[in-house]
Amino acid sequence: MAAPVAIVMGSQSDWPTMRCAADVLGELGVEFEARIVSAHRTPERMFEFGRGAADAGFKVIIAGAGGAAHLPGMLASLTHLPVLGVPVKSKALKGLDSLLSIVQMPAGVPTGTLAIGEAGATNAGILAASILALSDDPLSQRLQAWRAERTAAVAERPTDS
Amino acid sequence: MAAPVAIVMGSQSDWPTMRCAADVLGELGVEFEARIVSAHRTPERMFEFGRGAADAGFKVIIAGAGGAAHLPGMLASLTHLPVLGVPVKSKALKGLDSLLSIVQMPAGVPTGTLAIGEAGATNAGILAASILALSDDPLSQRLQAWRAERTAAVAERPTDS
Amino acid sequence: MAAPVAIVMGSQSDWPTMRCAADVLGELGVEFEARIVSAHRTPERMFEFGRGAADAGFKVIIAGAGGAAHLPGMLASLTHLPVLGVPVKSKALKGLDSLLSIVQMPAGVPTGTLAIGEAGATNAGILAASILALSDDPLSQRLQAWRAERTAAVAERPTDS
Amino acid sequence: MAAPVAIVMGSQSDWPTMRCAADVLGELGVEFEARIVSAHRTPERMFEFGRGAADAGFKVIIAGAGGAAHLPGMLASLTHLPVLGVPVKSKALKGLDSLLSIVQMPAGVPTGTLAIGEAGATNAGILAASILALSDDPLSQRLQAWRAERTAAVAERPTDS
Amino acid sequence: MAAPVAIVMGSQSDWPTMRCAADVLGELGVEFEARIVSAHRTPERMFEFGRGAADAGFKVIIAGAGGAAHLPGMLASLTHLPVLGVPVKSKALKGLDSLLSIVQMPAGVPTGTLAIGEAGATNAGILAASILALSDDPLSQRLQAWRAERTAAVAERPTDS
Amino acid sequence: MAAPVAIVMGSQSDWPTMRCAADVLGELGVEFEARIVSAHRTPERMFEFGRGAADAGFKVIIAGAGGAAHLPGMLASLTHLPVLGVPVKSKALKGLDSLLSIVQMPAGVPTGTLAIGEAGATNAGILAASILALSDDPLSQRLQAWRAERTAAVAERPTDS
Amino acid sequence: MAAPVAIVMGSQSDWPTMRCAADVLGELGVEFEARIVSAHRTPERMFEFGRGAADAGFKVIIAGAGGAAHLPGMLASLTHLPVLGVPVKSKALKGLDSLLSIVQMPAGVPTGTLAIGEAGATNAGILAASILALSDDPLSQRLQAWRAERTAAVAERPTDS
Amino acid sequence: MAAPVAIVMGSQSDWPTMRCAADVLGELGVEFEARIVSAHRTPERMFEFGRGAADAGFKVIIAGAGGAAHLPGMLASLTHLPVLGVPVKSKALKGLDSLLSIVQMPAGVPTGTLAIGEAGATNAGILAASILALSDDPLSQRLQAWRAERTAAVAERPTDS
Repeated sequence: MAAPVAIVMGSQSDWPTMRCAADVLGELGVEFEARIVSAHRTPERMFEFGRGAADAGFKVIIAGAGGAAHLPGMLASLTHLPVLGVPVKSKALKGLDSLLSIVQMPAGVPTGTLAIGEAGATNAGILAASILALSDDPLSQRLQAWRAERTAAVAERPTDS
Repeated sequence: MAAPVAIVMGSQSDWPTMRCAADVLGELGVEFEARIVSAHRTPERMFEFGRGAADAGFKVIIAGAGGAAHLPGMLASLTHLPVLGVPVKSKALKGLDSLLSIVQMPAGVPTGTLAIGEAGATNAGILAASILALSDDPLSQRLQAWRAERTAAVAERPTDS
Repeated sequence: MAAPVAIVMGSQSDWPTMRCAADVLGELGVEFEARIVSAHRTPERMFEFGRGAADAGFKVIIAGAGGAAHLPGMLASLTHLPVLGVPVKSKALKGLDSLLSIVQMPAGVPTGTLAIGEAGATNAGILAASILALSDDPLSQRLQAWRAERTAAVAERPTDS
Repeated sequence: MAAPVAIVMGSQSDWPTMRCAADVLGELGVEFEARIVSAHRTPERMFEFGRGAADAGFKVIIAGAGGAAHLPGMLASLTHLPVLGVPVKSKALKGLDSLLSIVQMPAGVPTGTLAIGEAGATNAGILAASILALSDDPLSQRLQAWRAERTAAVAERPTDS
Repeated sequence: MAAPVAIVMGSQSDWPTMRCAADVLGELGVEFEARIVSAHRTPERMFEFGRGAADAGFKVIIAGAGGAAHLPGMLASLTHLPVLGVPVKSKALKGLDSLLSIVQMPAGVPTGTLAIGEAGATNAGILAASILALSDDPLSQRLQAWRAERTAAVAERPTDS
Repeated sequence: MAAPVAIVMGSQSDWPTMRCAADVLGELGVEFEARIVSAHRTPERMFEFGRGAADAGFKVIIAGAGGAAHLPGMLASLTHLPVLGVPVKSKALKGLDSLLSIVQMPAGVPTGTLAIGEAGATNAGILAASILALSDDPLSQRLQAWRAERTAAVAERPTDS
Repeated sequence: MAAPVAIVMGSQSDWPTMRCAADVLGELGVEFEARIVSAHRTPERMFEFGRGAADAGFKVIIAGAGGAAHLPGMLASLTHLPVLGVPVKSKALKGLDSLLSIVQMPAGVPTGTLAIGEAGATNAGILAASILALSDDPLSQRLQAWRAERTAAVAERPTDS
Repeated sequence: MAAPVAIVMGSQSDWPTMRCAADVLGELGVEFEARIVSAHRTPERMFEFGRGAADAGFKVIIAGAGGAAHLPGMLASLTHLPVLGVPVKSKALKGLDSLLSIVQMPAGVPTGTLAIGEAGATNAGILAASILALSDDPLSQRLQAWRAERTAAVAERPTDS
C-alpha cells in the first residue's frame, strides 16, 4: 500500500525546494513517496498518476512546480483527493508566475496553495499532516507537540550574532 | 456537536463571496457553520474561536478576508486543524493584497489558499469536502458524482447567445 | 478531414473573446473548428483532443483560457503541432494571471502567446493564418491583401466624433 | 516602568533590519525594549503583549515582519497605542507582500507603515521619536538637531570614489 | 491657536477620500483644519505650511495625495512633526503609484503610511487620535470607547440581505 | 537561398539568451541565420530585413529583445511571415517590461511570444521547428523523436545530489 | 513650414487622450499638427514621418500609444528631435504595459515619458512648450503666466459639493 | 554663467547612476554642472535651486532619485524649465517605485521620464542634448554624428565570446 502522502514535482530541479516538504513529514512521522511527474514532459505519467492516486492509497498530494506551473491544477482535475500546490521560485519572476498559475484555479477544481519556495514546501507538509491527523490521533498528538516545540523555541529577545 | 466545517469571515461584506463556499457545501451535503470573526475588530472572539475550534468539533476551517487579510493566517496559528484561506477581492488592488497576505505564510503555519473571490470560495468548499471525504465514504461518493456531473455538463461546442 | 485550425477554449464564457479568432479566420478564408475543451473539468477530452489533433488533420491549435490557464500549455505537451495561446481577461487580475500561466512555459514545450483578450484572439487567428500560408500561396495572397487593406484604412488625421 | 518604545519582530531573522530602529532611537536618546513576538508561532505572547502594552507603560509600538506580515496589524487590533509597521524584505517578492500585508488595513485599525527594509526601520524609530517629542521638549530639541545635522551633512557635489 | 490636526491634500478632488479622516476625527472629538496644499501647483504654500506647522500649533499632519504623490513626503522633510500619508486611489494604477510614492521614503524622513483610499483616510484620523491620546486622557478614553463600540457592533453571523 | 529560420536580436548582449534558440534548432537539424538587427540603433537595417525577409526565403522569424522591446512587434508589422518573440531578461524589471512590450500587440499584428529568457529562446526554436514541420515530414519525425527522448529522460524519482 | 509640434498617435482611438496635448498647446499658443501614424499598421508612414520630421520643420514630437506601445521609441530611433511619449491607458493592464513599453528604452535612444492617460497627454503638451520656450521668450512668458494662473486657482480649503 | 544642463540627484549614492548622464554630455560636448540636492534632507536647497535655475542660466534639468523619488517632480513644480527624471534603481523594488514616483505626475507639472537606472541616465543626457540642439546647430551636428557612429558600430552578426 502506498504512503499516505505523495510529493510530486515537475523536475529534479524542484527537489531542493520540495525536499522541505519531505523533511517536515519525516519529522512528523508521516510516510510519503516523492516522484517526478512533469505535466509538460510526461503528460501520460501525470495522467496515470492522477487518475490512479486514490486507488493507489494516497490520501493527500503535494505538487510543486515553477513558472507556468500546471502540475498542481492538472492533478486536481484528475483526482478527488486534496491537492496542495507549492509555487517553486522561478528565475525571472521570482515565483509570482508560479503562484498565480497554481492558485487562480476556476471554480470546481481547487488547489490549496502555499507560499512561494521553501517555506511553502514545508507548509505543504504540515498541512498534509493536519489533514491526515483528522483521523489519526497519534499523528494529531505529534503535530500538536511539534507546534508546541516551535512555540517554545521562540526566544524572548533578539540577539546580535 | 459542531458542524465539521466552519466558514468564518472578517465582516458581513465578505458574505457575498463566502456564500459560494456555503452553497457548494450545501450541494455536497456537508454541514457548516458561518460566523463573522474579525481579526482586527474582534481579536478575542478570533482567539477563542481558533483555540476552541478543534474541541468544538470542527474539522476544517474556511476563512475569508480582504486587503491586509490576517484572519486565515491567525487562525492557522491558533489551531492545528487545516485552515483554508479565501482572498476576498479588495477595492483598490483587486485582491492581490488579500492573496499575498494569506498565502505568503512563514514556514510552520500553513494556510491552504484558494483563488481570489467567488471561485476561491467555491473551491474552499470543495477542498474542505475532499478533506472530509478521506474518512467519509458516502461524502467521497457524492463528491465524485458532483465532479462527474460537472464534467458531463461541459458542452462540446461554444454557442452564440 | 478536419479543418486546419482548431479553436479550443476552457468554457463557454471564453467564447466572446475567442470568437475574434474565428471571425478573422473567416475573413481570411481559413476553415476552423471551435470546441470547448476544459483542462480542469474534462481532462480526458483534453487528452484525447491533444493526442489526436495531428492525426485528425489539424495543423495549428489556438487555445484560450483565463486565470490559472492550463489549456494551452497542456495541449502543447500533448501534440507536436504549433499551439497558440490566448490569455482570456480574468475577473480579479485582468488577465495578468492568464498571461503568465500561458507564456511562462518551461524549455521544451512552447506556446506562442498572444495579447490578453480580444486583440490576442484576433492575433491568434492571424498568426495561425500566417503559419498555414507558408505552404498555401493563395492564403498568403489573401493575408497580404488583408494586411494592405488595414494599412490603407488608417486615416491621416484624427477626427473629433 | 517600561521604556516608551517597544520594538517587536516576528523572528530573530528580522533583527538585522529592525536593529536600524534601535540604532536611531539610541542616537536620539529614546529608550526602547526589543522583543521577539511572533504572531504565528507565539499568538498568546502576542496577545498578552498587545493587550498589556499600554498598562506596561509603552507609548509607541514598532512592529516588523515579512511575507504575510500579520504582527503590526494584529497588535493594532489589540492596543489603542499607535503602532508603526516595518515591512521586512522577503525572499521571493522582495517585501511587496510584507508591505501590502501591513499597510492595507481595514478602516478602524491603523498601522502607520514605513518603507520596506532598513530605511523603513530607521524611519519607524524617527517617527516614534517625533510622536514622543510632542510632549517631550528636550527630545523635540534633539530630534530637530539630529535632522539639522543630517541636512548639514549633505555635500554640495557628488564625488567619484 | 491651531487645531491639533491638519488634514492637507493636493487638490479638491482628494476631498471625498480625505473627508473620511475628518469624519472620524469629528466622531472622536478631535479638532482639525482641512486645507488644500498642492506640492506641485503651490510649492510655496506647501513650504510655508510645512515650515510653520509646528509653530502654528499643529501636532500631527495628515496628508493625502494620488499618483506621483509627493505631498506627504515633502511635508515630512519640512517639519519634525509626525506626518501620516494617505495614498489616494489613482485612475490608471488604482493607487499603487500613490502608495509607493508615499511609503518608500529614504532613511531619515518618515511618513507613516495608511491604506489606499477611504479606509486609509479613516485610519489616518484614528492614528492621529491615538498619537494625541498619549498626552490627553479624555481623548484616550473616547478612543477606547469608540473601539469598543466597533467591536460590539460586529454581528455573530452573516445575513443575506 | 536563405535558411528557413532567422534569429534576430537587438544587440550582442542578447546572444547568450538567443543562442538557446540556435542550439535547439541545431539539435533538430533546422538551418538558421543569426543576425543583429536593432530596432532602435539600426532602424533602416530592421526595415530592410523585415520587408525583405519573405523574398529572402525565410519562413519563420525569431526575434529577441529586452526592456522596451520593439523588435519583434516591428518585424511583425513589416512581414507577413510568422514572428516569434523572446523577451530577454532585463536588468531592473527582470523581463516583465520585455514581456509586456512584446506580447501586448494590437489586433492585426501578432507576435507569438515565448517565456522570458533562455527557456523562451529554446522554445522559440522548437515552435519554429513545429511550424516548419507542418510541411516537412522528416523534420516532423525528428521533432517527435526529440520530444520522446526528453520524455524518456525524466527520472522517476528525485535524487539528492 | 510645419508647426513646431507634431502630435502623433497609433490610432483614432488614442485621440480622446491625445487631444489633451492639443488642448493645452492651444491654450499656450503653440501650433501643432495632429496625425495618425501607426507603428504597426503603417510602418512606412512612420518611417517617412520620423526620418523627415526635422526637415519638415518640426521641433518636438509628442507620440502616444497603448499596449505594446512602439511608436514613441521607434520615432526616437528615426529622428534626433526630442520625442515625448504618452502611455495611453490600455484595456486589460490599465496602461502599465504602455508605460513600460515606452519608458524602458535602451541607452542611446531616449523617449521623455509622461504619465499614463490624459494627465500625461496634457503634460506632454506643457513639456513641449517648455522646450520651445527656451528660444521663444513670448512663449516663455505665456507658459509662466499659465503656470501662475493655475497656482492662483488652487483654493485654500476643500468644499463639499 | 551656468552650464546649460544641471544634473542633480538626491544623494551621493545616486552618482554611479547619474554619472552616465555626465559621461554622455561630455561626449557630446555639452557643459553641465552636477549637484546634490535632496528633496527630503535639503528642501531649502532644492527650493532655491529650483526657483533660481532659470535665472542662473540653466536650460534643462536632469534629476535622478530613487524610492519615493520626489526630486524631479518637485523641481518641475519650481521651474518652468524642462525637467527630465531618472528613476534610480532601488533596493527592494528595483526602481519600480522610483519610476512611478517620477512619471505619474498630475496634469500641469510634467517630468520627462527616462528608463530605470544607467540607461535612463544616459538617455537623459541625450534628450537634454537634443533639446539644446534645437537652437544650437553645431550641437545638432555632433548629436547626429554621435547617433550615426552608434548605428555604424552595430555588428552584423552575434559572436561567441
